[in-house]
Amino acid sequence: MEKSPVTLADVERAAERIRPYVRHTPLLRQMKMDKGLGCQVYIKPEMLQITGAFKLRGALSKILSLTQAERDRGIITSSSGNHGQACAYAGQLLGIRATVIVPEDTPSVKVENARAMGADVVLWDRSYVERWKKVHADVEAHGYTIVHNYEDLDVIAGQGTIALEIMQDLADVDTLLVPIGGGGLISGIATAVKESRPEIRVIGVQAEACCPYYVSRQNGERTRVTVRQTIADGLACDWPGENPYPIIEKYVDEIVTVSEEAIAEAVRVVANDAKLIAEPSSCVGIAALLSNRVNVRPDEKVCVVLTSGNWNIDMIGQLLKGEHVDCIG
Amino acid sequence: MEKSPVTLADVERAAERIRPYVRHTPLLRQMKMDKGLGCQVYIKPEMLQITGAFKLRGALSKILSLTQAERDRGIITSSSGNHGQACAYAGQLLGIRATVIVPEDTPSVKVENARAMGADVVLWDRSYVERWKKVHADVEAHGYTIVHNYEDLDVIAGQGTIALEIMQDLADVDTLLVPIGGGGLISGIATAVKESRPEIRVIGVQAEACCPYYVSRQNGERTRVTVRQTIADGLACDWPGENPYPIIEKYVDEIVTVSEEAIAEAVRVVANDAKLIAEPSSCVGIAALLSNRVNVRPDEKVCVVLTSGNWNIDMIGQLLKGEHVDCIG
Repeated sequence: MEKSPVTLADVERAAERIRPYVRHTPLLRQMKMDKGLGCQVYIKPEMLQITGAFKLRGALSKILSLTQAERDRGIITSSSGNHGQACAYAGQLLGIRATVIVPEDTPSVKVENARAMGADVVLWDRSYVERWKKVHADVEAHGYTIVHNYEDLDVIAGQGTIALEIMQDLADVDTLLVPIGGGGLISGIATAVKESRPEIRVIGVQAEACCPYYVSRQNGERTRVTVRQTIADGLACDWPGENPYPIIEKYVDEIVTVSEEAIAEAVRVVANDAKLIAEPSSCVGIAALLSNRVNVRPDEKVCVVLTSGNWNIDMIGQLLKGEHVDCIG
Repeated sequence: MEKSPVTLADVERAAERIRPYVRHTPLLRQMKMDKGLGCQVYIKPEMLQITGAFKLRGALSKILSLTQAERDRGIITSSSGNHGQACAYAGQLLGIRATVIVPEDTPSVKVENARAMGADVVLWDRSYVERWKKVHADVEAHGYTIVHNYEDLDVIAGQGTIALEIMQDLADVDTLLVPIGGGGLISGIATAVKESRPEIRVIGVQAEACCPYYVSRQNGERTRVTVRQTIADGLACDWPGENPYPIIEKYVDEIVTVSEEAIAEAVRVVANDAKLIAEPSSCVGIAALLSNRVNVRPDEKVCVVLTSGNWNIDMIGQLLKGEHVDCIG
């Protein structure tokens, strides 16, 4: 088997770099959930991370690995969501110019948030391909460094620091459930886990409406899928990442999918039992347990990674009331 | 001035007793709130405490101070809310029989929760006075020890452990904002603060609809008030407690009140910015800052204690959508 492009040592170095700037989020035992989910439930609540999402870990891991000359030229990315906010925040924190290319139809509140953190926000064509063309043109013109949300190896190493914290706080954890969107998060986590404690299970979870990694594993090769409407908009991605795919195939034990209904119910369960606001994308791990998509034992210690909480609060309110929410996609 | 019935040393001993059983909740810096609230905002999120509320601290502090003979006879309290749940949980944890007297119209989910934790739940007359008569009759008959939610000095000392954690995690905190219901929480917190760091401000917050401590301070004596309808149902109490009142008059710098509208808005702000589910009672400190009821400076480090998150999740959903919620009282 090929050597991985990211190693446990990379994740450990990332943890050293980002430690002064990120929150070691608490590991929260959720006894109330045990009966309904069929195991001993622990939550890693990354919505309590600064900027409300785990993405800050990866962004800072990358930016802190740049040379002074690179920092002076600035960074660029394309993301209207949590990764874009994380790059804007990290740029402000470290005094580095950050440019964020976002779709023209990005809600103004997100644009204003990123601008309030000093980022140059550029509204550009709605298509993913056109936006990344703009990124590369700006790199050509200004010498920016790209901070890619799931292809970048330093970003992947940064996301993996979540696993180090989990293993430190719960040495006898049996299983981790991790959402898969672009694949950066689970690549980092699985690397840190399997290169130190290979007996710990790492299970990836995708929305049924958008599951390229699930389909690719079945097909035995990277496969593009059609993205259907989903409330798990933060996970929407139609094609496995070039760098994450082999890491995930090597290290992730199982990939499962969950329905829209299970995701909505998971948002309610997390609010009611754990007292946390989780965006739907964040809750696919809980959804997988709720809908019996993962085999677990009652005495099994299962840590569910909740990635983020940045969603329209009116729509969270609708979900908590059990109302239908119009899907995005 | 009279010697207080609870001392810093009592709070420190309570912290030792309860340490193995409670969560040291994280102190969460909330930069996003600074602009709107006019200071440097920190949150102490006791909804992340086991049982979803700070009340477990006081209940365990009391129960762990009992002799073996007292433990063998069991404990009793009257509370359908967070204190009753805390006593039920603590009883189960320590193998002690717990009896909880609740109003006959208590929602069945709360009764079932307490029973699921092995408590004897007795539905009794709706009036406060009648229920406490029943408590005293049961004490007479069975030799139970009463765990009173705000008069008991060991309970007060237990609630004060929150202040020790805050001062440990943020040594240069300037001001604490603390909800006042029965007065047990702020009595413990103010004792721990003022007997170690008297320069730290401790400010109590009540709902305008129910503010006996506010009125009593104005009148210079314990004063009974009429409780109007309020969404801050967890704070409803018409008369300052006999033990808390002198402690609060001695140690609490200021008492302010907040409107129903400000409380509802605070629930939304906490969900949106801090990603936490807070019940309305929990949010009066944020409400006080939102509505300029407290003088603060932009560079002032203000820690707001959020007490709990156990509320009907549909009704939380209504508040997040900005809908009107029928008041309780």
